[in-house]
Amino acid sequence: MAAPIALIQGASRGLGLEFCKHILKNKTPAAVIATCRNPDGAFDLRGLADQHPGRLTILKLDANREEDILGAADRVKESFGRLDLMVNSAAMLHPSGKGETSLRDVSAQGIISTLTTNTVGPLIMAKYFAPLLQKGSGGFGQQPAEKAKQHSGIIVNITAKVGSIGDNGLGGWYSYRMSKAALNMATRNLSIELGRSRPKVVCVSLHPGTVNTDLSRPYHRNVPKDKLFDTEQSVNYLMNIIDMLNIEKTGKAYSWEGIDIPW
Amino acid sequence: MAAPIALIQGASRGLGLEFCKHILKNKTPAAVIATCRNPDGAFDLRGLADQHPGRLTILKLDANREEDILGAADRVKESFGRLDLMVNSAAMLHPSGKGETSLRDVSAQGIISTLTTNTVGPLIMAKYFAPLLQKGSGGFGQQPAEKAKQHSGIIVNITAKVGSIGDNGLGGWYSYRMSKAALNMATRNLSIELGRSRPKVVCVSLHPGTVNTDLSRPYHRNVPKDKLFDTEQSVNYLMNIIDMLNIEKTGKAYSWEGIDIPW
Ligand SMILES: NC(=O)c1ccc[n+]([C@@H]2O[C@H](COP(=O)([O-])OP(=O)(O)OC[C@H]3O[C@@H](n4cnc5c(N)ncnc54)[C@H](OP(=O)(O)O)[C@@H]3O)[C@@H](O)[C@H]2O)c1
Ligand SMILES: NC(=O)c1ccc[n+]([C@@H]2O[C@H](COP(=O)([O-])OP(=O)(O)OC[C@H]3O[C@@H](n4cnc5c(N)ncnc54)[C@H](OP(=O)(O)O)[C@@H]3O)[C@@H](O)[C@H]2O)c1
Repeated sequence: MAAPIALIQGASRGLGLEFCKHILKNKTPAAVIATCRNPDGAFDLRGLADQHPGRLTILKLDANREEDILGAADRVKESFGRLDLMVNSAAMLHPSGKGETSLRDVSAQGIISTLTTNTVGPLIMAKYFAPLLQKGSGGFGQQPAEKAKQHSGIIVNITAKVGSIGDNGLGGWYSYRMSKAALNMATRNLSIELGRSRPKVVCVSLHPGTVNTDLSRPYHRNVPKDKLFDTEQSVNYLMNIIDMLNIEKTGKAYSWEGIDIPW
Repeated sequence: MAAPIALIQGASRGLGLEFCKHILKNKTPAAVIATCRNPDGAFDLRGLADQHPGRLTILKLDANREEDILGAADRVKESFGRLDLMVNSAAMLHPSGKGETSLRDVSAQGIISTLTTNTVGPLIMAKYFAPLLQKGSGGFGQQPAEKAKQHSGIIVNITAKVGSIGDNGLGGWYSYRMSKAALNMATRNLSIELGRSRPKVVCVSLHPGTVNTDLSRPYHRNVPKDKLFDTEQSVNYLMNIIDMLNIEKTGKAYSWEGIDIPW
């Protein structure tokens, strides 16, 4: 069988970087395409490329720039011709680095930036990479025996539990919550459109738990120690879920424990 | 008691215009503030102002411009000092006038415009008008006997059933669906923040049914006649719901029949 190919969008640090590490370490001979805004400054990724010769490709991609996404898709098409897994990991809480605690902190510019990176980026990724995922070899997830139910590729949108409208009991974090709710709608829509196609592409939203990264740093002191995962723990959980995905599980949001998150 | 004051955002045509008509006709002596992008071209609103002398104020407001919203809030503060009901009605399906039927039709620019008008606009309205709603006299909705549970104002965000993630079985209309899902999250967040405050402001999302307006025009031929409401019917239904709102009903999405819509 052909070596699986995964693309991780937002791979310079945090969970995106850890997905690259995990797949290179645990899924030999899988190839990884890591995208980031500034490859020249992505020292961790470049170190990883040296450790795994020939297996990691680093591409420049700003999720806010449709032309970057189109360009990266062209590069992947030329070099690989297909894709088996795409993880949209890049996101921000808010351009200020802190979620709004009340309406006072809300600004049109802040919401629009957050929506552009967290929501529009992943959907435009899906637009340009769906054709490559439809040519995938189904190298991630679980393939049922029945041919008609097999999938060629998987899209994972990294969401957050605070993006659940039904679960929202605390409020605040307007931009981030709204961006993830809209991302979950994108997941649902993608699962329908790409689940109808032949071959099928699975699409889910995954919540990584609260993870020790730059994004959540301002809030770490409020999190009990055993509830604050390191990136390795979180990605272990998420890859376990990904390993079990199939077309029956498409179109939902799952948390790191594998439990459905309400919309 | 002081005359109720309602503000309708997106009042030049369609449902927004009908809300103005309905309140002027059925809620005497209520005052209505109608906002629209181009007051000079808003002939229907100007006719309505002539029919109801002294009761209708027309203000210029483009939902995409934070400075317009701030300016309108300042004007309302000066002239009225408070607000009892705010309806965010303005929205579009997509800048092209048609919802995307597949990923092929999706563009970053199209989604961002749709999100800006349909989602960011209503939230920025809430930011600047919440202080006036907190000074409202509770002239709309139902007031329980218990003082602590009474509300001073109501925010209605006009949503759409296709903005329900859980109810989404068909896909398509990426930008519009995502904008309404994110708007529903805004509703939920607003209901929490403004439900904690004293006095309380109620916030709900309402789905008007499929209504004979410019927005839905490209799709009318697919809608059975008895399922296509005229604006008068739809606003009758929605005002019935608004008349029964209280703080116990805040933070949800209701359809024109008064039934909860899943997130
Ligand atoms: N950490 C948590 O507790 C937590 C909880 C729930 C969900 N999540 C989700 O998990 C995902 C990963 O977050 P994280 O914790 O790993 O965050 P992080 O450590 O702050 O990393 C964010 C990543 O996103 C990239 N990025 C930001 N804007 C971008 C853009 N316009 N184009 C391309 N890349 C961009 C950053 O790249 P640069 O290096 O170029 O800035 C960085 O690689 C996010 O979707 C987040 O919402 C995290
Ligand atoms: N019609 C339906 O079947 C249906 C179904 C479900 C939900 N809805 C919702 O109902 C609400 C009203 O829609 P409708 O059917 O009445 O639509 P409509 O007849 O097309 O009217 C749209 C209104 O929005 C205004 N608008 C658009 N962009 C604006 C902006 N940037 N700033 C200020 N105003 C702006 C338009 O003003 P201009 O005159 O200046 O363009 C117009 O007054 C929307 O939220 C829509 O999503 C409608």
